[in-house]
Amino acid sequence: MINFDFFSPTYFAFGRGSEHRVGELAARYGSRKVMIHYGKGSVVKSGLLDKVRQSLNNYNISFVELGGAVPNPRASLVYEGIELGRQADVDLILGIGGGSAVDSAKAIALGIPYEGDFWDFYSGKASPIRALPVGSIVTLAATGTEGSNASVITNDYLGNIKSSSNNDLSKPVFSILNPELTFTVPDYHTACGATDILSHILERYLTNTTEVELTDRMSEAIFTRILEATREALADPENYEARADLLWGGTLAHNDILGAGREQDWSSHRMEHALSAEFDVAHGAGLAVIFPNFLTYTLEHDPARFSRFAVKMFGVDPQGKSEPETGREGIKKFREFLDEIGMPKTLADLGIGADDIPRLLKAVVPNNGDLLGYFQPLTEDDVTNIFELCL
Amino acid sequence: MINFDFFSPTYFAFGRGSEHRVGELAARYGSRKVMIHYGKGSVVKSGLLDKVRQSLNNYNISFVELGGAVPNPRASLVYEGIELGRQADVDLILGIGGGSAVDSAKAIALGIPYEGDFWDFYSGKASPIRALPVGSIVTLAATGTEGSNASVITNDYLGNIKSSSNNDLSKPVFSILNPELTFTVPDYHTACGATDILSHILERYLTNTTEVELTDRMSEAIFTRILEATREALADPENYEARADLLWGGTLAHNDILGAGREQDWSSHRMEHALSAEFDVAHGAGLAVIFPNFLTYTLEHDPARFSRFAVKMFGVDPQGKSEPETGREGIKKFREFLDEIGMPKTLADLGIGADDIPRLLKAVVPNNGDLLGYFQPLTEDDVTNIFELCL
Repeated sequence: MINFDFFSPTYFAFGRGSEHRVGELAARYGSRKVMIHYGKGSVVKSGLLDKVRQSLNNYNISFVELGGAVPNPRASLVYEGIELGRQADVDLILGIGGGSAVDSAKAIALGIPYEGDFWDFYSGKASPIRALPVGSIVTLAATGTEGSNASVITNDYLGNIKSSSNNDLSKPVFSILNPELTFTVPDYHTACGATDILSHILERYLTNTTEVELTDRMSEAIFTRILEATREALADPENYEARADLLWGGTLAHNDILGAGREQDWSSHRMEHALSAEFDVAHGAGLAVIFPNFLTYTLEHDPARFSRFAVKMFGVDPQGKSEPETGREGIKKFREFLDEIGMPKTLADLGIGADDIPRLLKAVVPNNGDLLGYFQPLTEDDVTNIFELCL
Repeated sequence: MINFDFFSPTYFAFGRGSEHRVGELAARYGSRKVMIHYGKGSVVKSGLLDKVRQSLNNYNISFVELGGAVPNPRASLVYEGIELGRQADVDLILGIGGGSAVDSAKAIALGIPYEGDFWDFYSGKASPIRALPVGSIVTLAATGTEGSNASVITNDYLGNIKSSSNNDLSKPVFSILNPELTFTVPDYHTACGATDILSHILERYLTNTTEVELTDRMSEAIFTRILEATREALADPENYEARADLLWGGTLAHNDILGAGREQDWSSHRMEHALSAEFDVAHGAGLAVIFPNFLTYTLEHDPARFSRFAVKMFGVDPQGKSEPETGREGIKKFREFLDEIGMPKTLADLGIGADDIPRLLKAVVPNNGDLLGYFQPLTEDDVTNIFELCL
């Protein structure tokens, strides 16, 4: 185990009807004027927005509204939100929806008190020293943004660069999680979300840090339950318990409780960000294509770890098999699972061809020659090879 | 799963040398003057207190000191701390040591801004509305107070009533956990601490809430690792990784991440508090006597759950056995483990006899006829029967 800091200050209100508590929770954090930020359509149609307005009214908290967040949320909307927030003098940004609305809420919260361009925090030019508090109401089990320090923004002014900011200031002060709000998520997006959750676990599970038995077991506990709960939710979209375990498991997969004390990888996420920035594919779908091929490519780096992955995550029987053989069977089972839940298998399934690899490579590989990730640090050739495996 | 709130705002700094960061962390929370509260002996002799003084000096944070915390910490010292803290106008209480010093630091932090008697918060007469922030440096893997809302105080002015306060205000703002600081813990107290940790998991694991698969698996992950790490630490007290998993596992066993969404029991803790208040036994030792007998007594309430406990926690093979048989084998293995690590088996081992049961009963059973605990709510007769099983 390596030294670590762990800090998860978010107040989580979880369960049926919890969206009615948004006024109470905003008041707990002293808010007088909220910016409600959401996507389009379902938040309005489902009546959720009305419930939020009502709850804030009940606590005499005023608000302004900004809709329009889209998957792979755009910088242009963040600029709009910063402008609106300053004019209206809001003191808390409430993101409602899947990961996108919450991620752009985080960016707006960073940008409002900052004199420069909020993108500085995403380009690495500056580190934030203050931010407005963010609250969230999450309607999709996926990104874990409700408990994470991360937000990912696509800069549509700069050729769709997709970049992330990771900062304690971006951890929501409260997050409201009602599994019922995810009943209407279509199968494809349920599966994309599950793939994202599983990937968040694996980005931490694949580590060179030894002696991480406690967090390994916790990771295996959550991963295996997510596999089951995904199948249950797809079979019966209104299965409350399955939706609940996906939602809470998705939060725990990314509030870094599973990363405590270990070096983490994150190269698959970096490769996927190039995909979704350049081709606007769903993040989970991109991960479904990349992750199994990343696993195949790096298997020889640490066959013992892959063997454990296969045995503990997918119940592979290691009897009579070498570690690489066991590991490969685990990867095969992971591919079969992703196929079963309807995820794409290849870049071709996403409309991306061999000709596009140079463009992807340009978006993913740092120009300064740094290697990508930490498990098996990847050269530009490695990344090319992995994209070719994905074809 | 039932609705829940989860809130674990503590900033954890974990690892080798982390005690040198106390100044940085106190400064992070705006402190100018700290009360350092500790027990006796080891904190001074080990040089830990000097390191803390130095680190605070480095950040120009002044301090006053109050030693003397003892296991089952006393109200009389809390009153002394409140008086000292008010006179010195401190703004943060830093508890250093095992659970006791941190628990009385929490009580002092509740008492300083309160006009009435701090005991009101432990007797249930009042609920706190504010408290000074608490920091902790923990030198024993056991109580989980470093991340919990709980503190337990024994009122030596009121015939040694032992009572707890549970409040979000008592969650430390930061906790420093260096496994090296636990290398010198004697075997008996290492084992007592492990028993406390395992009990914190079981108090939540034994539930009537159905559909708690995610947290069940997380509980099993942590429980089984604690079993192993305890053996490793007893075999080699300077095994860093074993000490680290005990320390972090002990935190996670009681910051309520394992209690999310489920009804919890806590009757064994209530029975043990009577033991340690009346006879000043180590909390873990008291739990080692009571818990297996509580399990035996309540097995028929839910044999399926006990069977799962046996299979998942202790690897019992359920083949050809009824659920109660499997469950009983699990309890037997739990007893064997406690025996192996040197814990007492009977009240007699603690110097307590059948004649003392009425006195224990008086200390544990509420006079208003409420049942004890939630798994199998216990009548006064039930509690008597369990104490008799412990003889």
